[in-house]
Amino acid sequence: MKKVEDYVRTIPDFPEPGIMFRDVTTVLQDAEGLKLAIDEMIKLLEGLDFDVIAGAESRGFIFGTPIAYALNKPFVLIRKKGKLPCETVSKKYALEYGEAEIEMHKDSIKPGQKVVLVDDLIATGGTIAAAADLVKELGGEVVKIIFLMELMGLNGREKLSAYDVESVIKYPGA
Amino acid sequence: MKKVEDYVRTIPDFPEPGIMFRDVTTVLQDAEGLKLAIDEMIKLLEGLDFDVIAGAESRGFIFGTPIAYALNKPFVLIRKKGKLPCETVSKKYALEYGEAEIEMHKDSIKPGQKVVLVDDLIATGGTIAAAADLVKELGGEVVKIIFLMELMGLNGREKLSAYDVESVIKYPGA
Repeated sequence: MKKVEDYVRTIPDFPEPGIMFRDVTTVLQDAEGLKLAIDEMIKLLEGLDFDVIAGAESRGFIFGTPIAYALNKPFVLIRKKGKLPCETVSKKYALEYGEAEIEMHKDSIKPGQKVVLVDDLIATGGTIAAAADLVKELGGEVVKIIFLMELMGLNGREKLSAYDVESVIKYPGA
Repeated sequence: MKKVEDYVRTIPDFPEPGIMFRDVTTVLQDAEGLKLAIDEMIKLLEGLDFDVIAGAESRGFIFGTPIAYALNKPFVLIRKKGKLPCETVSKKYALEYGEAEIEMHKDSIKPGQKVVLVDDLIATGGTIAAAADLVKELGGEVVKIIFLMELMGLNGREKLSAYDVESVIKYPGA
Protein backbone atom coordinates (compact mmCIF):
# COMPACT_ATOMS: atom_id res chain seq x y z
CA MET A 1 0.00 0.00 0.00
CA LYS A 2 1.59 3.25 -1.13
CA LYS A 3 1.64 6.32 1.09
CA VAL A 4 1.15 9.89 -0.08
CA GLU A 5 4.86 10.65 0.28
CA ASP A 6 5.64 7.92 -2.23
CA TYR A 7 3.98 10.07 -4.90
CA VAL A 8 5.93 13.27 -4.10
CA ARG A 9 8.84 13.96 -6.46
CA THR A 10 11.87 15.47 -4.75
CA ILE A 11 14.15 17.69 -6.84
CA PRO A 12 17.50 18.38 -5.17
CA ASP A 13 19.02 21.85 -5.40
CA PHE A 14 15.93 23.52 -6.90
CA PRO A 15 15.39 26.45 -7.19
CA GLU A 16 18.80 26.92 -5.53
CA PRO A 17 21.60 24.77 -4.03
CA GLY A 18 20.69 23.15 -0.72
CA ILE A 19 16.91 23.27 -1.30
CA MET A 20 15.06 19.99 -1.75
CA PHE A 21 12.03 20.96 -3.82
CA ARG A 22 8.96 18.86 -2.99
CA ASP A 23 6.95 18.59 -6.19
CA VAL A 24 3.27 17.89 -5.64
CA THR A 25 2.40 17.60 -9.33
CA THR A 26 3.31 13.90 -9.31
CA VAL A 27 0.85 13.32 -6.47
CA LEU A 28 -1.95 15.05 -8.34
CA GLN A 29 -1.32 13.49 -11.73
CA ASP A 30 -1.84 10.01 -10.27
CA ALA A 31 -5.50 9.20 -9.54
CA GLU A 32 -4.62 7.18 -6.43
CA GLY A 33 -2.10 9.76 -5.23
CA LEU A 34 -4.64 12.56 -5.54
CA LYS A 35 -7.36 10.59 -3.75
CA LEU A 36 -4.99 9.56 -0.97
CA ALA A 37 -3.69 13.14 -0.47
CA ILE A 38 -7.19 14.61 -0.17
CA ASP A 39 -8.43 11.77 2.05
CA GLU A 40 -5.43 12.09 4.40
CA MET A 41 -6.06 15.83 4.71
CA ILE A 42 -9.74 15.15 5.40
CA LYS A 43 -8.71 12.79 8.22
CA LEU A 44 -6.98 15.72 9.93
CA LEU A 45 -10.41 17.38 10.19
CA GLU A 46 -12.28 14.42 11.66
CA GLY A 47 -14.46 15.42 14.58
CA LEU A 48 -13.71 19.12 14.10
CA ASP A 49 -16.61 21.58 14.26
CA PHE A 50 -16.11 24.21 11.55
CA ASP A 51 -18.04 26.27 8.99
CA VAL A 52 -15.73 27.25 6.15
CA ILE A 53 -12.58 26.14 4.33
CA ALA A 54 -10.31 28.86 2.95
CA GLY A 55 -7.22 28.54 0.78
CA ALA A 56 -4.70 30.90 -0.81
CA GLU A 57 -3.96 31.25 -4.50
CA SER A 58 -2.99 29.16 -6.24
CA ARG A 59 -1.99 25.85 -4.67
CA GLY A 60 -4.33 26.30 -1.72
CA PHE A 61 -7.12 26.15 -4.31
CA ILE A 62 -5.98 22.69 -5.42
CA PHE A 63 -6.56 21.10 -2.03
CA GLY A 64 -9.18 23.42 -0.59
CA THR A 65 -12.02 22.83 -3.06
CA PRO A 66 -12.01 19.00 -3.11
CA ILE A 67 -11.99 18.96 0.70
CA ALA A 68 -14.85 21.48 0.80
CA TYR A 69 -16.77 19.49 -1.81
CA ALA A 70 -16.28 16.19 0.01
CA LEU A 71 -17.31 17.66 3.39
CA ASN A 72 -20.13 19.82 2.04
CA LYS A 73 -18.57 23.08 3.22
CA PRO A 74 -18.11 26.46 1.53
CA PHE A 75 -14.74 27.36 0.03
CA VAL A 76 -13.41 30.90 0.41
CA LEU A 77 -10.73 32.23 -1.94
CA ILE A 78 -7.72 34.13 -0.66
CA ARG A 79 -6.28 35.80 -3.73
CA LYS A 80 -3.28 37.83 -4.80
CA LYS A 81 -3.86 41.59 -4.70
CA GLY A 82 -6.11 43.02 -7.40
CA LYS A 83 -8.02 39.93 -8.52
CA LEU A 84 -11.18 40.05 -6.40
CA PRO A 85 -13.91 42.28 -7.85
CA CYS A 86 -15.72 43.45 -4.69
CA GLU A 87 -14.71 45.14 -1.44
CA THR A 88 -11.72 43.44 0.16
CA VAL A 89 -9.43 43.42 3.15
CA SER A 90 -5.75 42.95 2.33
CA LYS A 91 -2.52 42.09 4.07
CA LYS A 92 1.12 42.45 3.07
CA TYR A 93 3.74 39.97 4.17
CA ALA A 94 7.47 39.52 3.69
CA LEU A 95 8.97 37.15 1.14
CA GLU A 96 12.61 36.11 1.00
CA TYR A 97 13.06 38.93 -1.50
CA GLY A 98 10.50 41.72 -1.34
CA GLU A 99 6.91 41.36 -0.25
CA ALA A 100 3.53 40.06 -1.39
CA GLU A 101 -0.06 41.02 -0.65
CA ILE A 102 -3.16 38.86 -0.39
CA GLU A 103 -6.84 39.77 -0.23
CA MET A 104 -10.20 38.40 0.81
CA HIS A 105 -13.68 39.66 0.01
CA LYS A 106 -15.21 41.43 2.99
CA ASP A 107 -18.34 39.28 2.68
CA SER A 108 -16.45 35.98 2.40
CA ILE A 109 -16.41 35.25 6.13
CA LYS A 110 -19.26 36.05 8.49
CA PRO A 111 -18.37 37.15 12.05
CA GLY A 112 -18.12 34.15 14.34
CA GLN A 113 -17.55 31.59 11.59
CA LYS A 114 -15.09 28.81 12.33
CA VAL A 115 -12.52 28.67 9.55
CA VAL A 116 -10.08 25.96 8.46
CA LEU A 117 -7.11 27.14 6.39
CA VAL A 118 -5.69 24.71 3.82
CA ASP A 119 -2.46 24.78 1.82
CA ASP A 120 -0.20 22.32 0.05
CA LEU A 121 3.00 23.20 1.89
CA ILE A 122 4.24 25.05 4.93
CA ALA A 123 7.71 26.48 4.53
CA THR A 124 8.28 29.75 6.42
CA GLY A 125 4.54 30.15 7.05
CA GLY A 126 4.38 33.75 5.84
CA THR A 127 1.41 33.40 3.48
CA ILE A 128 -0.74 31.39 5.82
CA ALA A 129 0.02 33.68 8.80
CA ALA A 130 -1.18 36.63 6.68
CA ALA A 131 -4.26 34.63 5.65
CA ALA A 132 -5.06 33.89 9.31
CA ASP A 133 -4.78 37.62 10.10
CA LEU A 134 -7.31 38.40 7.34
CA VAL A 135 -9.76 35.79 8.65
CA LYS A 136 -9.54 37.36 12.11
CA GLU A 137 -9.94 40.86 10.67
CA LEU A 138 -13.25 39.67 9.16
CA GLY A 139 -14.39 38.33 12.55
CA GLY A 140 -13.73 34.67 11.81
CA GLU A 141 -12.01 32.20 14.08
CA VAL A 142 -9.17 30.06 12.69
CA VAL A 143 -9.94 26.69 14.28
CA LYS A 144 -7.32 24.69 12.37
CA ILE A 145 -4.63 24.97 9.70
CA ILE A 146 -3.75 21.90 7.62
CA PHE A 147 -1.03 21.20 5.06
CA LEU A 148 -0.20 18.27 2.87
CA MET A 149 3.54 18.82 3.39
CA GLU A 150 5.64 20.48 6.06
CA LEU A 151 9.30 21.54 5.77
CA MET A 152 10.22 21.32 9.42
CA GLY A 153 13.63 22.97 9.09
CA LEU A 154 12.07 26.31 8.15
CA ASN A 155 10.19 26.63 11.45
CA GLY A 156 6.98 27.83 9.88
CA ARG A 157 5.06 26.66 12.93
CA GLU A 158 6.65 29.44 14.99
CA LYS A 159 4.66 32.03 13.01
CA LEU A 160 1.54 29.92 13.57
CA SER A 161 2.04 29.13 17.27
CA ALA A 162 -1.39 30.57 18.12
CA TYR A 163 -3.10 27.90 15.99
CA ASP A 164 -3.81 24.20 15.81
CA VAL A 165 -1.54 23.14 12.92
CA GLU A 166 -1.31 19.67 11.36
CA SER A 167 0.33 18.25 8.25
CA VAL A 168 0.19 14.89 6.47
CA ILE A 169 3.87 14.63 5.49
CA LYS A 170 6.69 16.06 7.61
CA TYR A 171 10.10 16.57 5.99
CA PRO A 172 13.10 17.32 8.17
CA GLY A 173 15.19 20.17 6.76
CA ALA A 174 14.30 22.77 4.14
CA MET B 1 -34.58 24.65 -5.89
CA LYS B 2 -31.80 27.10 -6.67
CA LYS B 3 -29.72 26.82 -9.82
CA VAL B 4 -25.98 27.45 -10.05
CA GLU B 5 -26.51 30.80 -11.77
CA ASP B 6 -28.47 32.01 -8.75
CA TYR B 7 -25.21 31.93 -6.77
CA VAL B 8 -23.17 33.93 -9.30
CA ARG B 9 -22.71 37.61 -8.40
CA THR B 10 -22.77 39.95 -11.39
CA ILE B 11 -20.83 43.20 -11.11
CA PRO B 12 -21.73 45.70 -13.84
CA ASP B 13 -18.97 47.78 -15.46
CA PHE B 14 -16.10 45.86 -13.89
CA PRO B 15 -13.20 46.00 -14.60
CA GLU B 16 -14.29 48.52 -17.26
CA PRO B 17 -17.53 50.08 -18.56
CA GLY B 18 -19.72 47.67 -20.52
CA ILE B 19 -18.28 44.52 -18.93
CA MET B 20 -20.56 42.44 -16.72
CA PHE B 21 -18.14 40.67 -14.38
CA ARG B 22 -19.36 37.21 -13.36
CA ASP B 23 -18.03 36.60 -9.86
CA VAL B 24 -17.72 32.94 -8.97
CA THR B 25 -16.59 33.54 -5.37
CA THR B 26 -20.21 33.70 -4.22
CA VAL B 27 -20.87 30.27 -5.74
CA LEU B 28 -17.88 28.75 -3.95
CA GLN B 29 -18.47 30.39 -0.58
CA ASP B 30 -21.88 28.73 -0.34
CA ALA B 31 -21.73 25.01 0.45
CA GLU B 32 -24.76 24.25 -1.74
CA GLY B 33 -23.55 26.51 -4.54
CA LEU B 34 -20.16 24.81 -4.60
CA LYS B 35 -21.65 21.32 -4.58
CA LEU B 36 -24.14 22.20 -7.31
CA ALA B 37 -21.46 23.79 -9.53
CA ILE B 38 -19.16 20.77 -9.31
CA ASP B 39 -22.00 18.29 -9.77
CA GLU B 40 -23.33 20.13 -12.83
CA MET B 41 -19.85 20.10 -14.38
CA ILE B 42 -19.55 16.38 -13.61
CA LYS B 43 -22.85 15.81 -15.44
CA LEU B 44 -21.24 17.22 -18.60
CA LEU B 45 -18.77 14.30 -18.45
CA GLU B 46 -21.34 11.52 -18.02
CA GLY B 47 -20.65 8.58 -20.29
CA LEU B 48 -17.38 10.07 -21.54
CA ASP B 49 -14.32 7.83 -21.76
CA PHE B 50 -11.28 9.79 -20.58
CA ASP B 51 -8.06 9.41 -18.57
CA VAL B 52 -7.02 12.78 -17.19
CA ILE B 53 -8.43 16.15 -16.11
CA ALA B 54 -6.25 19.21 -16.66
CA GLY B 55 -6.82 22.81 -15.57
CA ALA B 56 -4.99 26.10 -15.86
CA GLU B 57 -3.77 28.28 -13.01
CA SER B 58 -5.44 29.48 -10.97
CA ARG B 59 -9.21 29.18 -11.35
CA GLY B 60 -8.97 25.99 -13.38
CA PHE B 61 -7.49 24.45 -10.24
CA ILE B 62 -10.63 25.32 -8.26
CA PHE B 63 -12.90 23.20 -10.42
CA GLY B 64 -10.44 20.67 -11.78
CA THR B 65 -9.38 18.97 -8.56
CA PRO B 66 -12.81 18.33 -7.02
CA ILE B 67 -14.01 16.85 -10.33
CA ALA B 68 -10.89 14.67 -10.54
CA TYR B 69 -11.32 13.61 -6.91
CA ALA B 70 -15.01 12.76 -7.36
CA LEU B 71 -14.39 10.77 -10.55
CA ASN B 72 -11.14 9.12 -9.38
CA LYS B 73 -9.05 10.64 -12.15
CA PRO B 74 -5.63 12.30 -12.14
CA PHE B 75 -5.37 16.08 -12.20
CA VAL B 76 -2.70 17.76 -14.30
CA LEU B 77 -1.61 21.32 -13.58
CA ILE B 78 -1.18 23.88 -16.34
CA ARG B 79 0.80 26.68 -14.76
CA LYS B 80 2.05 30.14 -15.52
CA LYS B 81 5.59 30.23 -16.89
CA GLY B 82 8.40 29.52 -14.41
CA LYS B 83 6.50 27.69 -11.68
CA LEU B 84 6.95 24.03 -12.60
CA PRO B 85 10.23 22.50 -11.39
CA CYS B 86 10.88 19.84 -14.06
CA GLU B 87 11.13 19.80 -17.85
CA THR B 88 8.20 21.56 -19.50
CA VAL B 89 6.59 22.46 -22.77
CA SER B 90 5.30 26.03 -22.98
CA LYS B 91 3.01 28.12 -25.14
CA LYS B 92 2.54 31.87 -25.50
CA TYR B 93 -0.84 33.37 -26.26
CA ALA B 94 -2.24 36.85 -26.80
CA LEU B 95 -4.08 38.77 -24.10
CA GLU B 96 -6.08 41.95 -24.65
CA TYR B 97 -2.91 43.84 -23.72
CA GLY B 98 0.34 41.95 -24.23
CA GLU B 99 0.78 38.21 -23.92
CA ALA B 100 0.97 35.38 -21.40
CA GLU B 101 2.71 32.01 -21.34
CA ILE B 102 1.63 28.72 -19.79
CA GLU B 103 3.52 25.49 -19.19
CA MET B 104 3.00 21.81 -18.55
CA HIS B 105 5.44 19.20 -17.29
CA LYS B 106 6.60 16.94 -20.11
CA ASP B 107 5.70 13.87 -18.05
CA SER B 108 2.23 15.13 -17.10
CA ILE B 109 0.43 13.57 -20.07
CA LYS B 110 1.31 10.22 -21.58
CA PRO B 111 0.97 9.83 -25.37
CA GLY B 112 -2.51 8.63 -26.27
CA GLN B 113 -4.18 9.76 -23.04
CA LYS B 114 -7.65 11.21 -23.36
CA VAL B 115 -7.73 14.61 -21.65
CA VAL B 116 -10.59 16.77 -20.38
CA LEU B 117 -9.81 20.47 -19.94
CA VAL B 118 -11.67 22.34 -17.19
CA ASP B 119 -11.98 26.05 -16.43
CA ASP B 120 -14.36 28.36 -14.60
CA LEU B 121 -15.09 30.67 -17.52
CA ILE B 122 -14.70 30.94 -21.27
CA ALA B 123 -14.37 34.49 -22.52
CA THR B 124 -12.13 34.84 -25.60
CA GLY B 125 -10.84 31.27 -25.18
CA GLY B 126 -7.15 32.21 -25.49
CA THR B 127 -5.87 30.40 -22.41
CA ILE B 128 -7.73 27.18 -23.01
CA ALA B 129 -6.79 27.10 -26.71
CA ALA B 130 -3.12 27.37 -25.68
CA ALA B 131 -3.68 24.63 -23.08
CA ALA B 132 -5.20 22.35 -25.73
CA ASP B 133 -2.15 22.95 -27.95
CA LEU B 134 0.14 21.88 -25.10
CA VAL B 135 -1.85 18.70 -24.47
CA LYS B 136 -1.55 17.81 -28.16
CA GLU B 137 2.19 18.62 -28.15
CA LEU B 138 2.55 16.01 -25.39
CA GLY B 139 0.68 13.44 -27.47
CA GLY B 140 -2.61 13.69 -25.59
CA GLU B 141 -6.06 13.92 -27.12
CA VAL B 142 -8.44 16.66 -25.94
CA VAL B 143 -11.72 14.75 -25.79
CA LYS B 144 -13.76 17.51 -24.13
CA ILE B 145 -13.51 21.04 -22.71
CA ILE B 146 -15.94 22.11 -19.98
CA PHE B 147 -16.62 25.44 -18.29
CA LEU B 148 -18.87 26.54 -15.49
CA MET B 149 -19.67 29.81 -17.28
CA GLU B 150 -19.60 30.96 -20.89
CA LEU B 151 -19.66 34.58 -22.13
CA MET B 152 -21.24 33.95 -25.49
CA GLY B 153 -20.69 37.45 -26.88
CA LEU B 154 -16.92 36.97 -26.90
CA ASN B 155 -17.05 34.04 -29.36
CA GLY B 156 -14.50 31.96 -27.46
CA ARG B 157 -15.90 28.84 -29.08
CA GLU B 158 -14.49 29.95 -32.43
CA LYS B 159 -10.96 29.38 -31.12
CA LEU B 160 -12.09 25.96 -29.86
CA SER B 161 -14.06 24.84 -32.91
CA ALA B 162 -11.97 21.66 -33.19
CA TYR B 163 -13.22 20.46 -29.80
CA ASP B 164 -16.31 19.25 -28.00
CA VAL B 165 -17.08 22.25 -25.74
CA GLU B 166 -19.82 22.47 -23.09
CA SER B 167 -20.66 24.92 -20.32
CA VAL B 168 -23.13 24.89 -17.43
CA ILE B 169 -24.18 28.56 -17.57
CA LYS B 170 -24.40 30.55 -20.81
CA TYR B 171 -24.47 34.34 -20.62
CA PRO B 172 -25.36 36.34 -23.72
CA GLY B 173 -22.99 39.28 -24.23
CA ALA B 174 -19.58 39.93 -22.68
